[in-house]
Parts: sequence; C-alpha cells; structure tokens
Amino acid sequence: MTLALDAAAQDLLFREAHTANTFTDEPVTDEQIQAVYDLIKLAPTAFNQSPLRIVLVRSEEARARLVPLMAEGNQPKTAAAPLVAILAADNEFHAELPTLFPHFPQAKDLFFSERPVREQAAAMNATLQAAYFILGLRAAGLAAGPMTGFDFAAVQKEFLDGDHSPLMIINIGKPGEGAFHPRSPRLSFEQAVTTV
Amino acid sequence: MTLALDAAAQDLLFREAHTANTFTDEPVTDEQIQAVYDLIKLAPTAFNQSPLRIVLVRSEEARARLVPLMAEGNQPKTAAAPLVAILAADNEFHAELPTLFPHFPQAKDLFFSERPVREQAAAMNATLQAAYFILGLRAAGLAAGPMTGFDFAAVQKEFLDGDHSPLMIINIGKPGEGAFHPRSPRLSFEQAVTTV
Repeated sequence: MTLALDAAAQDLLFREAHTANTFTDEPVTDEQIQAVYDLIKLAPTAFNQSPLRIVLVRSEEARARLVPLMAEGNQPKTAAAPLVAILAADNEFHAELPTLFPHFPQAKDLFFSERPVREQAAAMNATLQAAYFILGLRAAGLAAGPMTGFDFAAVQKEFLDGDHSPLMIINIGKPGEGAFHPRSPRLSFEQAVTTV
Repeated sequence: MTLALDAAAQDLLFREAHTANTFTDEPVTDEQIQAVYDLIKLAPTAFNQSPLRIVLVRSEEARARLVPLMAEGNQPKTAAAPLVAILAADNEFHAELPTLFPHFPQAKDLFFSERPVREQAAAMNATLQAAYFILGLRAAGLAAGPMTGFDFAAVQKEFLDGDHSPLMIINIGKPGEGAFHPRSPRLSFEQAVTTV
C-alpha cells in the first residue's frame, strides 16, 4: 500500500528473487542483456560517470580460461551457467565525461585529473551500477549469481586491462533445480535505520 | 517485450525517474522509509553482510548541523528537502554475521577478522545497498537526490562514529517545480559491453 511499485514487480525484483546457484540450459541472449543494459544505464551515478564495463564470457575458450580463476566453491557454478559476466570499473571513465556530463565538461579536469581519485569514484559508481544490473537481470526474468570469490589480479590480467578493475562476476540464467538456498535473516528497520 | 518487468514499473524505476533537485512540501513518513527498507533489504550482498546503515535527518537541529557540511551547491537542496538520509557503511558488520549468515558462522573470523578487509567489503556492499535504496525510494513514488558533495570527515564526526563511514547523502521527497535536469547521454550497449 505504501509503495507505488505494483506487487508483481516487487516480487519479481525483490521478494521472490534469490541468488541462483544452479541454472537450466536455456540460453541467455545478447538481446536480453542489451534490454537489461538499456534499462539500467538510466539509473544515476555521480556526474553521470557511468564507469561500469561488462565482459560477457560466451566462448568455450574464454570460459575455460575463467573457471580456474574462480574460488573452488564457485567453479562448478561458473562452468555450468548459461552466461557469465565479468563486471569491471573503468578507471579512465573521465575520458567520456565531456560527452556524459555536457553541461559541465570541466569536471573531467577539475575533479578527476588524479588516478587515485578516479579509481575510488569508478569503484563506487560502478558498484552502484552493478546493483542496478543485478536488479535489471531480475527485471528480464533472469536469475543472477553474483560472486566476489575469484582471483581479482588474474581475472584482470586475463580478461581486462590495467585501466579496468574487476568488481564481481555474475552467473546468469534461468534458475535450475535446487537453485535457491533458504533466505537468510535480514537486519530489521530498527537495526539499520536511526533518526536524528 | 524482452523484459518480464511491466512497462509501468520500468518507467517508475528507470525511464521516467530522475535525480530530483527541488521538492514539494509533502512530508516523507517513517512508514514510507520502512516500506522501502523492508523491500530493498532482500536484495543481495556478499555473505549477506548487509552493512548499510541509514541516519534519517528529521529534526531542525540536526538539519542545521548538516547543511553547512554540504558542498555549497548542495546546501539549498539539503536545506529544503522534506527528508535527508545519510547512508553509511558499518565497518563492524561482521559482528552480525553469525546471525546474518547462519549456515557458515565461521565467515566472521575466517574472512573478516581484519579491519582493512572489512572496510573494503563494507564500502562495496553498502554501496550495492545504496543503489537498491535509491531504486526503492522510486518504488515508493519518491524522488531521490543522491550527493557525494559533502565533507565526509565532518559528517562522520558529527553524525556517525568511527565504525561507520559515510557513503552518500540523499535528499528525498516528491519532485517540485523544475526538479529535473534534462537527462544526459548514456554510453551505448556497444560502448559498455564486450563479448569474449
């Protein structure tokens, strides 16, 4: 009642959605991922930085390079998922700022001339976009299995370059048999929110 | 067509939603924020860490302490918004892990015994939750104005403690006259997504 979002959408995105640990064989198409991206690209980042970069691991060759870089417990999931995406932060996002933030193109040099500042901004804003992407996958009727259990340096070396820092890797597909663990408890409103 | 999420929900959360820079006088109630929190708390974090903490700035006294800590361009918005929320990452989230991640309570000590590791995990996972919260506000028919332009050290000292690191501050309310800037360009699918 308090929410404007309809109940079916609440269920799809939050209440009935879970991190998936197994998947069916149904493929995930580029059209699906593009529809997700074209929706979630609209959600906000600071200065419209939009630093999220996504590598879709589609070929058998690339999958074979990725799986051994995952933590052991994640390897079977990443080997079996219909699609795997490497999410990364572009530490050189500022090159696009004159286009992305046209009413204040000076931001590129005024605020983001130093690499450590950019790395921090890129990590934060790409992480916001990673969250939008996870919900966007759910919006496409897909299940996501986000993981940070992998060799970050090796994934960067093997799949990215020095300007792109890995954030997480997501298994993507339709949930398979036994895909979901029971939901763990969450902190209550009173535990997480205070008023001053 | 490619998305399972209905068009009205797509519009509410993404396509017609914008960062708001002005607000009406309509109050934002605790019930609304609780409904938002109770929805978005379900979205995933690593190890169910759930490190996001929210301080709702409701009293005039607290607002008067906060406004001068904002960047000059943000001060009028933060002074005028019906509600302002300080979002922070709890660097001691691991204390709750035995409850939040009951099937592997050892995670608390195995993975998160060191403060720098916790700080990085808290920042990342609270940022994911900040993105969920922004979309959750939109799900409640509210507009969000997230900002990182403020004195982080001063906000931490004035409103938080050493264990809570500020992430962003969000103005919350119904959009007022001229609330929205025109949407800036986004990177295309081809610019942001590659396939291997």
